[in-house]
Amino acid sequence: MEKKEKHELGITVSKEENFSEWFSQVVFKANLADIRYGLQGFIVHREWGMRILRKIYELLEEEVEKQGHEPVLFPVAIPQKFFEKEKEHVEGFAPEVFWITKAGDNELEEPFALRPTSETAFYSMYALWIRSWKDLPFKRYQSRICVYRYESHTRPFLRGREFLFFETHCAFRTHEDAMEQIKKDMETMKKVAQEKLFIPFVLLKRPEWDKFAGAHATYAADCIMPDGKVSQIGTTHDLAQKFSKAFNVTFKDKDMKDKYVWITCFGPGIWRLMAAVIAIHGDDQGLILPSVLAPYQAVIIPIYFKGKEEKVENACKEVENILTKAGFSVIFDNNKDETPGFKFNKWELLGVPLRIEIGPKDIESKSAVIVRRVDREKIKVSLENIVEELKKQLKINDEKIKENAKKYWKVHRAKSFEELQELIKKGGFIKAPFCDIDKNGEKCAEELQRKTALKVRGIPVENQEKPEEGEKCIVCGKPAKYIVWLAKAY
Amino acid sequence: MEKKEKHELGITVSKEENFSEWFSQVVFKANLADIRYGLQGFIVHREWGMRILRKIYELLEEEVEKQGHEPVLFPVAIPQKFFEKEKEHVEGFAPEVFWITKAGDNELEEPFALRPTSETAFYSMYALWIRSWKDLPFKRYQSRICVYRYESHTRPFLRGREFLFFETHCAFRTHEDAMEQIKKDMETMKKVAQEKLFIPFVLLKRPEWDKFAGAHATYAADCIMPDGKVSQIGTTHDLAQKFSKAFNVTFKDKDMKDKYVWITCFGPGIWRLMAAVIAIHGDDQGLILPSVLAPYQAVIIPIYFKGKEEKVENACKEVENILTKAGFSVIFDNNKDETPGFKFNKWELLGVPLRIEIGPKDIESKSAVIVRRVDREKIKVSLENIVEELKKQLKINDEKIKENAKKYWKVHRAKSFEELQELIKKGGFIKAPFCDIDKNGEKCAEELQRKTALKVRGIPVENQEKPEEGEKCIVCGKPAKYIVWLAKAY
Repeated sequence: MEKKEKHELGITVSKEENFSEWFSQVVFKANLADIRYGLQGFIVHREWGMRILRKIYELLEEEVEKQGHEPVLFPVAIPQKFFEKEKEHVEGFAPEVFWITKAGDNELEEPFALRPTSETAFYSMYALWIRSWKDLPFKRYQSRICVYRYESHTRPFLRGREFLFFETHCAFRTHEDAMEQIKKDMETMKKVAQEKLFIPFVLLKRPEWDKFAGAHATYAADCIMPDGKVSQIGTTHDLAQKFSKAFNVTFKDKDMKDKYVWITCFGPGIWRLMAAVIAIHGDDQGLILPSVLAPYQAVIIPIYFKGKEEKVENACKEVENILTKAGFSVIFDNNKDETPGFKFNKWELLGVPLRIEIGPKDIESKSAVIVRRVDREKIKVSLENIVEELKKQLKINDEKIKENAKKYWKVHRAKSFEELQELIKKGGFIKAPFCDIDKNGEKCAEELQRKTALKVRGIPVENQEKPEEGEKCIVCGKPAKYIVWLAKAY
Repeated sequence: MEKKEKHELGITVSKEENFSEWFSQVVFKANLADIRYGLQGFIVHREWGMRILRKIYELLEEEVEKQGHEPVLFPVAIPQKFFEKEKEHVEGFAPEVFWITKAGDNELEEPFALRPTSETAFYSMYALWIRSWKDLPFKRYQSRICVYRYESHTRPFLRGREFLFFETHCAFRTHEDAMEQIKKDMETMKKVAQEKLFIPFVLLKRPEWDKFAGAHATYAADCIMPDGKVSQIGTTHDLAQKFSKAFNVTFKDKDMKDKYVWITCFGPGIWRLMAAVIAIHGDDQGLILPSVLAPYQAVIIPIYFKGKEEKVENACKEVENILTKAGFSVIFDNNKDETPGFKFNKWELLGVPLRIEIGPKDIESKSAVIVRRVDREKIKVSLENIVEELKKQLKINDEKIKENAKKYWKVHRAKSFEELQELIKKGGFIKAPFCDIDKNGEKCAEELQRKTALKVRGIPVENQEKPEEGEKCIVCGKPAKYIVWLAKAY
């Protein structure tokens, strides 16, 4: 009986054998998103997904508000004239932009873009809002929005024509102040993605040719997905004075001179964080959620036996009450049409961290069985200590998620093109000597990508490794300036 | 000194004398929104406004989740083919729709609409999601989104080409179940708008000619703004089976027959609620916020005297700590560049419910001065009881806001066209005998509007009044079937 139900409900492929299909099934079956809306790249975010995504947003909002960012909301529409003010920016984004050209039966005089990102919208207003050095730093963010890019290959939570966005935009008196913010943005990534979502990643300075369009420098967080490809889960950009000059964002400094502000912007990838949580933590039963993201930390499942129904139901309700009062978010799954086995599978698919089983025998011994999602370990606990036990098992569940996530973290080192070719099939990052990460290196990067599909992802922000003496660029053979991180990427 | 500062910062017109200009100034000066973005009808939501709006959203989310609605998020893009499936719906909305026709340099094969509302998007998926009577009721909502309508006259929080939206969409087995939901939606309006935001309103069944495009019946909440015009702050629609037939949303019933679901949808007006809060509660000093909406319930302002600075600062910090620990959201405004008078004006403009002044003399007598925003009454309180006092004064502040709001609530009764003309200048609603609210009444409604600018807003859902014997329609003179509510409207 249990088996049949599992088959109907559950994931039918193994994550290790067919990651791509496994990912699609989890997205669909765990009610995260539905791709059947009928417009390529526009998905419907479903119930369970929305509840998890909302928590990702809340974590980020809390973090940036602690740093003094205030919330704003800009229009989705960006007038063509704003968009064209920063030359590199418009060149980079133009091929991806959706245009609104009509309303009712009228052609619009000036078409406007659906925002692919919001720099030009923000800074057109910063020019009005910022007047004096006293207004600086000027830190704002917008959250729970979507942006729009005309992409050709789309996948839920990885690449969309519409996807969820979060962005901060900050203006500073000096470049030093701006660089301090860049560091704080990286800290935010660590606090949220690493410490709370348990996603291992590296912070890389992107090479010159892979910067954000219009940026002076781009710093990115890359994680490794189970298929060995890396995924960018966030970026922070040093825009220097490029946009402040394009949009005339000036301030009167202490010396009464008008100066251009220094701008940074930061965009953790809401979708990409979600994709990493699904992909890195999940297993063949479905989602596995860190406790901060779980809509419920535990599900209580009654094990009914004839004649003992009321006793069991009451015991479950009591546990539900005790745990709710203690501040946990729990659900008592009292659906009478489903067997316990069906419920086990359902909640495992949804990734709820703990399951509490209570049957007549448990009640007799004043105990319950807690089952951890991460390793399905069963622990018999005393009902008297249920609050402490739940806390403890939740912590163990989280620790094991964190530990398990390390298995996809692979960083190899190649000294030659031959070594590199050997390492590619292992997946993850390959560190290799490279001539340069400014314009001079672009040709080598293109050649490398053509031959191996590997991209130059950049050089680490922390613990940068130097080439050994005499090491040569693996592509052109010139002396290597850097040890760069290479990978196939989403 | 204080006067000059006040002049720079504050509202320069009286609400009673020039409501329209007063409203615009509050919106701009209290950092609610900025209309200088450069695209008509697309505003920038600013910091203080976002923090208030977020609370309106949270109140609604909490309320509908309690009723079992689950969150989803649909694309902003609506394919033309969806849009055209319900005939009345497309006819009603077509003139207002923005169209995306281009991406990069390509013309799109099928243009898509920016959602003016989301019925067609939701029900295209409900057709896939709903299978059996066991899936019903099927209750979903989406929050913190914008919708887009090509309007000609736009004003922040009243009418926009882009404006904030919240919508629930529910499917039921029977029409009775659907009507139960309509009642619950009305309850939600009462719980949020009336009991928490203190906005007086009436629930009206709209006449046939003023229904939502595609609805079987529309029920709306109308409040009265200070200029005597009414504003629709929410609607709930009985869509019956119109959309389920257009989108083929069926379920297998208990008798194993396939049937069409009954659909309702509910949209409290986020912007309109905000506009009502601004307009109805505010005064010549600016915003006045009910405690549930205030980002801070109290601001602590130090009254510094030479030599006593440290003492005052420490006392303020202690009060801040005590209140924060007690669960209040308070801010200690310790800006040393601004005088107390400047701060008083600043926080009054922002509508923070209570101000706590602490100076050297207060410290000596172990007291503080609480000033209520609503009536600027000063209350000397003992620091020992500061938590209880704050609670008490917050309650009084709320009660007075609620009480004051009644002054704009005017409902007159006209028995003839002549009486009606006399009453128009008094503002608010006029109840009058009217021939009919189905198609037969439309001509009279048009004539009335042409002559008086009054619109037929509908008949009350509760406490419906019957025409007196022999009463005639004020327009055509035929026997009156209803006492309808008339008003000039936003």
